[in-house]
Amino acid sequence: MNRASHWTADPIELLRVGEGFRLADVDPASSPGIEGGKKAGAAALAAGLERLTDLQVQLFAGSRMGGDQRRILLVLQAMDTAGKGGIVKHVMGAVDPQGVQLVAFKKPTEEELAHDFLWRIHKEVPGPGQIGVFDRSHYEDVLIARVRELAPPAELERRYGAINDFERQLAATGTTIIKVMLHISADEQKARLADRLERPDKHWKFNPGDIDERLHGPKYQEAYQRVFDLTTTPDAPWYVVPADHKWYARLVVQHLLTDALERMRLDWPKADYDVEEQKARLAAS
Amino acid sequence: MNRASHWTADPIELLRVGEGFRLADVDPASSPGIEGGKKAGAAALAAGLERLTDLQVQLFAGSRMGGDQRRILLVLQAMDTAGKGGIVKHVMGAVDPQGVQLVAFKKPTEEELAHDFLWRIHKEVPGPGQIGVFDRSHYEDVLIARVRELAPPAELERRYGAINDFERQLAATGTTIIKVMLHISADEQKARLADRLERPDKHWKFNPGDIDERLHGPKYQEAYQRVFDLTTTPDAPWYVVPADHKWYARLVVQHLLTDALERMRLDWPKADYDVEEQKARLAAS
Repeated sequence: MNRASHWTADPIELLRVGEGFRLADVDPASSPGIEGGKKAGAAALAAGLERLTDLQVQLFAGSRMGGDQRRILLVLQAMDTAGKGGIVKHVMGAVDPQGVQLVAFKKPTEEELAHDFLWRIHKEVPGPGQIGVFDRSHYEDVLIARVRELAPPAELERRYGAINDFERQLAATGTTIIKVMLHISADEQKARLADRLERPDKHWKFNPGDIDERLHGPKYQEAYQRVFDLTTTPDAPWYVVPADHKWYARLVVQHLLTDALERMRLDWPKADYDVEEQKARLAAS
Repeated sequence: MNRASHWTADPIELLRVGEGFRLADVDPASSPGIEGGKKAGAAALAAGLERLTDLQVQLFAGSRMGGDQRRILLVLQAMDTAGKGGIVKHVMGAVDPQGVQLVAFKKPTEEELAHDFLWRIHKEVPGPGQIGVFDRSHYEDVLIARVRELAPPAELERRYGAINDFERQLAATGTTIIKVMLHISADEQKARLADRLERPDKHWKFNPGDIDERLHGPKYQEAYQRVFDLTTTPDAPWYVVPADHKWYARLVVQHLLTDALERMRLDWPKADYDVEEQKARLAAS
């Protein structure tokens, strides 16, 4: 739909998880669907900003007048350093903060653990007109929870179905769900972690636990594969985005959001008051 | 503190509510402390963006490592069309969304009304490292509530003290509070409302109730004056910002935030792990 000209093929088709998808087959250093490198990518990101922000305002406007219930939920999952924060800053940061509902899910608290895993998630789903962004999500409960055996096997198995039910209901009540896994290579991750250790202004971004998780890389790959196998649905597709090149991943996420908004065929909501009457009232005030 | 060169006098001193302050004496069309107009103002705003975002990252970093509990709360109050939304978009929108906690307080729900007026406010105060922004706030409970007589007189009177207690405790636990009233003239408001009625892409921003509120303008001025008289404290000062010129109001708020962050004398937090040890672990991973 009105694909911006820098794409040689629609990344949505190229990156959407389909039948027989294998995570192991994805090259994290690739940039499918586009020619040119970092510089062209940055220019394309800047060029796409206005379209995205214009559409977002229309989504927001429709929720304020006319009762449009539609909203977007962008789920971001990735290993450490893959660039979730950069997406939030450089893609979502361009959008009016009033229309963005960002939630960063951390290690669950004791209270959260005492409830079903979706308890804390339900509370944070976006309202009408909003673009909700989950920086980590309910998928942690079948990723780290599986790798680290944080729940009994039967409970872990139950969760995939619970997630599908949850997402189906979200979709049925007006939420367009976009699930993104940013996929980086072990080598690129090593370089990014090394950079954090090298620079005193980045020490705060590093945690010794990041290396522990890194050592579990293969188990995470397996857990992700299982997520794609069991939670890819028409209502809530997964996109695996090669993320060794930050510019590429950002451009893809911007495109996914813009495309989702275009598909809504948004328009300015009609006034729910008599415009001429209000003009007269204003003139007299 | 390191006042950017476009200021001819510190707007903090010029705009802070002090002894004997009279709202009626403020000219909403003025731009105290600066020379030049819209173009110079926009350039100054863009120029100040990097300093603000750099400082914000340091505030955020300190909360993530080292346990710095400090945070900022920016309270925005104004009559309709005065430009709260523009501040959120053009000043806060430049900051990494991860470090901004924006809350727009609407008409209270039945559940909220069944609790003390501060119940819903307490739940939304910013966490460590965050810049919290209240788009409207607990001050509505002594502004519209007073003008519209939404609570008994004794309850309204009680609230000023409750607000001062609340803000004192926030300040005591690490919150720098900045309270801003954007002050526009009746004429400028009329022009902005007319623009919303003129443009179909802005109809959604207009509500017939806006004119009702406008007709109560003098009562609101009185209610604001009372707010300044009773809730101006050393811990939680008020700034009345002339807002007929959007560029001026945005520049002032950017300056207030930058100044507050500079006064914190932020620095990158020291690593709470052994950097060399982690480098060796990473190399071996």
